[in-house]
Amino acid sequence: MIVVNSIEELKIATANLKGSIGFVPTMGALHEGHLSLIKRARVECDTVIVSIFVNPTQFLEGEDLDKYPRKDEADKQICKLAKVDILFMPTIDMIYNRDELRVEAPAIRGFILEGSRRAGHFNGVLQIVMKLFNIISFNRPKEFKAYFGKKDAQQLALIEQMVRDYFLNVKIIPCDIVRDSDGLALSSRNVYLSKEERVKALSISRSLKRASKLIMQNILDKETIVKEMRGVMSEIEIEYIALVDREFREIESVEIKNSIILVASRVGGVRLIDNIWI
Amino acid sequence: MIVVNSIEELKIATANLKGSIGFVPTMGALHEGHLSLIKRARVECDTVIVSIFVNPTQFLEGEDLDKYPRKDEADKQICKLAKVDILFMPTIDMIYNRDELRVEAPAIRGFILEGSRRAGHFNGVLQIVMKLFNIISFNRPKEFKAYFGKKDAQQLALIEQMVRDYFLNVKIIPCDIVRDSDGLALSSRNVYLSKEERVKALSISRSLKRASKLIMQNILDKETIVKEMRGVMSEIEIEYIALVDREFREIESVEIKNSIILVASRVGGVRLIDNIWI
Repeated sequence: MIVVNSIEELKIATANLKGSIGFVPTMGALHEGHLSLIKRARVECDTVIVSIFVNPTQFLEGEDLDKYPRKDEADKQICKLAKVDILFMPTIDMIYNRDELRVEAPAIRGFILEGSRRAGHFNGVLQIVMKLFNIISFNRPKEFKAYFGKKDAQQLALIEQMVRDYFLNVKIIPCDIVRDSDGLALSSRNVYLSKEERVKALSISRSLKRASKLIMQNILDKETIVKEMRGVMSEIEIEYIALVDREFREIESVEIKNSIILVASRVGGVRLIDNIWI
Repeated sequence: MIVVNSIEELKIATANLKGSIGFVPTMGALHEGHLSLIKRARVECDTVIVSIFVNPTQFLEGEDLDKYPRKDEADKQICKLAKVDILFMPTIDMIYNRDELRVEAPAIRGFILEGSRRAGHFNGVLQIVMKLFNIISFNRPKEFKAYFGKKDAQQLALIEQMVRDYFLNVKIIPCDIVRDSDGLALSSRNVYLSKEERVKALSISRSLKRASKLIMQNILDKETIVKEMRGVMSEIEIEYIALVDREFREIESVEIKNSIILVASRVGGVRLIDNIWI
């Protein structure tokens, strides 16, 4: 594995690659969730590139940019063991200029749910992903795939839309959510949870399981499902429970194989999201 | 020459190209200015692709989108004679989706001068150019060049910035302004001018020549130059006269080989821009 700290070096490292590139963009603090993306890229692609960049433009005023967990040395070890070929760790100055062109998330889909709680968050996400796609594929690989977790479902949907709207030559590979043995969806922010908070947080994945059981019993209407889920999560602060189709349009009744149920909540000071794809 | 009316056909037409692509994006109504870009691309590149697309998102409310001159058949003939390989003429529906991601021009450079008179214009320009670059280079040509006239100097500067900010693998080739024998800079909008208006409009290029002569006499301060130019253009409505460096920062004194003097004016109902690179 080579560690590359500048865009120029990255361009040199990718100048003579043959075959396909599999790209896994991350903000570091890697866990089994990221590792599952890397492993899949390793199986499917000739060259695997991971980026670690805590992107400032996707954090809002008052969010945890400064205390976002950073574990560069551990992350390097994880990537090396996972047989990553190139680990790209640029600095902020290399990625952003002054008085930049900005990307604006779609007026509707970019500003509902996560977008309404974190206004402007997706602008920053799309901006950095667009930049990273262009940097990583600068030397025009034969094939270019990028791996994203389904946990950030709205982010994934918006990135897929960006690929369509801007005709990007990249294949987006959505990857399943990885959970701890107790059911909690993995997240770099889980480290913020106290022991007690963590126990409470388990009700999130339990509520999704409950929804899934209802659907298996052919109970498909949103109202009933949401009511049951609220019951399961009675001890935590729910920001929203939403039912959307795979295009992220809100729907009133589950459509099998075309729906996502989403939860956003706060447990103690920690914001947690989770979802299930039906 | 093949005429391609859809993105899918364009992708097929560019699937097995060898060598370099030279791309000339236009809104049609081709004149000698466009032709000079096409000719240069023809000399410098293996495959020449011209697009004709009157891009709605760069026209503001009340501007001339509906009456913008359209001359598809004449344009096809011009391209054919100029040995264009692929003429790309998509429809609006193919380029734009509903609830799109948008591109926002830089907050400062995108909203001064032309950007302040036509607020939002450059958002639309950058959006369509980003899309077209991605479409035309979808199949990863060995080399990709795009040709733009210096007449739209601010547009050119912003496109160069977009290439830098988003790490696009395209080489931007700025091309000199082409003028009629009487000095008027060519523009598709010149057809709107009456005979009398056209005579008045000639004072624009005369004022730039006057500026150029002053500079040769080592008179470099903006104030004197602008005053003299205003004198030459006394019979037309001047929107602005500006002095900027090549990065489009306003400056107070000409910097040789790093300056542009810009004029925007209205003659009758027609908005005309022109400039000179010092």
